[in-house]
Amino acid sequence: MTHATTATPTPADLGDALARLRERQPLVQCITNAVVSGWTANVLLATGAAPAMVDNPLEAPEFAAIADGLLVNVGTPTEATLEAMRAAISSADASGTPWVLDPVAIGGLGWRTAFVPELLEIATPTIVRGNASEIAALAGGAGGRGVESTDAPEQVLTPARTVARRGSVVAISGEVDHLLALTPSTDGAGGDQEVLVRLGHGDPLLTRVTGAGCALGALMAAFAGVCDDALTAAAAATATLTLAAETAAESARGPGSFAVALLDELSLTTPDGLAERVHLA
Amino acid sequence: MTHATTATPTPADLGDALARLRERQPLVQCITNAVVSGWTANVLLATGAAPAMVDNPLEAPEFAAIADGLLVNVGTPTEATLEAMRAAISSADASGTPWVLDPVAIGGLGWRTAFVPELLEIATPTIVRGNASEIAALAGGAGGRGVESTDAPEQVLTPARTVARRGSVVAISGEVDHLLALTPSTDGAGGDQEVLVRLGHGDPLLTRVTGAGCALGALMAAFAGVCDDALTAAAAATATLTLAAETAAESARGPGSFAVALLDELSLTTPDGLAERVHLA
Amino acid sequence: MTHATTATPTPADLGDALARLRERQPLVQCITNAVVSGWTANVLLATGAAPAMVDNPLEAPEFAAIADGLLVNVGTPTEATLEAMRAAISSADASGTPWVLDPVAIGGLGWRTAFVPELLEIATPTIVRGNASEIAALAGGAGGRGVESTDAPEQVLTPARTVARRGSVVAISGEVDHLLALTPSTDGAGGDQEVLVRLGHGDPLLTRVTGAGCALGALMAAFAGVCDDALTAAAAATATLTLAAETAAESARGPGSFAVALLDELSLTTPDGLAERVHLA
Repeated sequence: MTHATTATPTPADLGDALARLRERQPLVQCITNAVVSGWTANVLLATGAAPAMVDNPLEAPEFAAIADGLLVNVGTPTEATLEAMRAAISSADASGTPWVLDPVAIGGLGWRTAFVPELLEIATPTIVRGNASEIAALAGGAGGRGVESTDAPEQVLTPARTVARRGSVVAISGEVDHLLALTPSTDGAGGDQEVLVRLGHGDPLLTRVTGAGCALGALMAAFAGVCDDALTAAAAATATLTLAAETAAESARGPGSFAVALLDELSLTTPDGLAERVHLA
Repeated sequence: MTHATTATPTPADLGDALARLRERQPLVQCITNAVVSGWTANVLLATGAAPAMVDNPLEAPEFAAIADGLLVNVGTPTEATLEAMRAAISSADASGTPWVLDPVAIGGLGWRTAFVPELLEIATPTIVRGNASEIAALAGGAGGRGVESTDAPEQVLTPARTVARRGSVVAISGEVDHLLALTPSTDGAGGDQEVLVRLGHGDPLLTRVTGAGCALGALMAAFAGVCDDALTAAAAATATLTLAAETAAESARGPGSFAVALLDELSLTTPDGLAERVHLA
Repeated sequence: MTHATTATPTPADLGDALARLRERQPLVQCITNAVVSGWTANVLLATGAAPAMVDNPLEAPEFAAIADGLLVNVGTPTEATLEAMRAAISSADASGTPWVLDPVAIGGLGWRTAFVPELLEIATPTIVRGNASEIAALAGGAGGRGVESTDAPEQVLTPARTVARRGSVVAISGEVDHLLALTPSTDGAGGDQEVLVRLGHGDPLLTRVTGAGCALGALMAAFAGVCDDALTAAAAATATLTLAAETAAESARGPGSFAVALLDELSLTTPDGLAERVHLA
């Protein structure tokens, strides 16, 4: 089980999380889009997790009960995968399996903008990961309008707080990734407890390879399977991917060699190296 | 909007097209086969376009109205993606979005050989891209029989003219790519205006990587989004991919390293370099 | 047609099989999972076969009649692909097209554990390929319970014999791949004729790339299309993939560069090189 966060994770916490991932090899169920399924599985394998792309409605709920983490990514939905998402979320919730929601392109396309809020009614995601416009759309209301995907995460902190207040850690991807955890005041007098973590690692080449964000969501599900604290899981996944990207970019000639080097670097990253290099603000 | 062609594009036209693609980053909707969707997205991203694999029937038409270009590739059709194709083509036609048809394996398989002509009845593709046998099959009648995919494009110019006369630029892939635009005579006295462009670039390794032709179709949709002239779009896409392939092949040990280098070279190609190296006949 | 086996293939037999594959370029129909379809096609192309991912129920049976080999991999089943599998198996059986069953995750997930035995009732696979737990589950009964996928092939030889006795060559993947062919005694007095081939090639990096096993099944379908003997086909596929993996691992920094090098090495492997390097026990 993943619990509410009240403290900022330290670099050592992130290194410990990677060490646990390597040791436990969490089983990560991915109900994700067809474009990135192979790439996502390879990112998980390279990092040390065990991917399982069980996305049919007949088997998804039974698997969500035994998986260590579940990713629900709505990139290329079909009627069948949507049914699988619903059943898997319900099963994950009943079994205490942490799950990550990646609301790809919500706000920009009608069907998913309608069904994603229904998924949220089934259960609260452990972590929600998206870009600025997706997080704004997920918050609903006027906040979701007019936000461009090129907007910076810091511009959507208000809608992000709306989402976080429902109980999810919110990870907003951008040049500086913003991760937000919020514990609502219980006395009705306001004064939410908020923890905001910012990570400025990465490389522009991440935007030239399809599925970098989708793979980040999958890594968050993997880390959530080995971390009690969801904010630590989200931060460890972000640090692992973006630091590997920095190293991969050094030797890359373009997006092809970058993607290959990124998988190599994910496998070569050590817990100590992660803790040494990561900068949390 | 893309208009009828009456002149052969020049190398400078192709360089200009690539410069526009880099500047405008056209949004390319791909309803394509499951085998190559990730690869296609990566080819588009490497070249400088913005892929969006919106292929469900509920969202495909709304997206086709705002996309800069649409690819319809029938490689692995399902009932749902066929419905998405129909709706997206209709929407693209109503909105003036240029679209590319890639009639994969038509003539060889029953279902698609039946439904592709129905897609053509909804609207005329801006560009049709295929190998010799597919173009022959698309023309219908006896011309489609007995043509092997290994046949050279020059052997199917008669059926290609049948397709081109309906209003599409026809791109026939082969060792020498043949691109055909044809403006029917309006006085009923015959004498069609025809422009034929031949490009002999590329490398045999393109046939050892799955989805090279499919990615070419996607690039044509990207260039059609930034070119008024469909023949220029088809030629710019062909030149960009096949020249990058020539460079990539120089350093490749086999199909694995070739595919990686191809993505790198697509990102490294400059408009000036393209104009300098391309040979149009 | 592929016939029953009574002799152990020699290294020269495997080299000859690869030479025939290169010459005939067998057409391999793959009804496989969505995660690995692009990768599987690239492995087939790199090795010298011609992939065709025809997996819809309307076209799958017509194609299975003309394909040289058929792969049925149940990794990410849908209602439609299951229907395609049934129709394709029936058609392959009627046409003498050899086919390979890869019962991914059978025993661990309910739906496929129920429908795979139904596929076996339609026709007997030429080759069944899986890990230890999948082979045990396929044998049914108590043998299928409690077997871990990390178990060694030698621990499931008894259930493997149950499967082999029905008429399929059984290929159990593991650190040492075990390939089993069995001709039941015809006089009712017992004393089955059994041939067991063991190959200890490969590299741990094969487990860090998604779809290595799936690609092996596809290669078995390719070799079955050019080999009269199913055990030779299974052994040639195993040797080709695992020896290429050994060479690829020498230069790899991690799973990314390993996968790229593996495709290169598959294309560079020669029949003579295969025969010289392979060790059969």
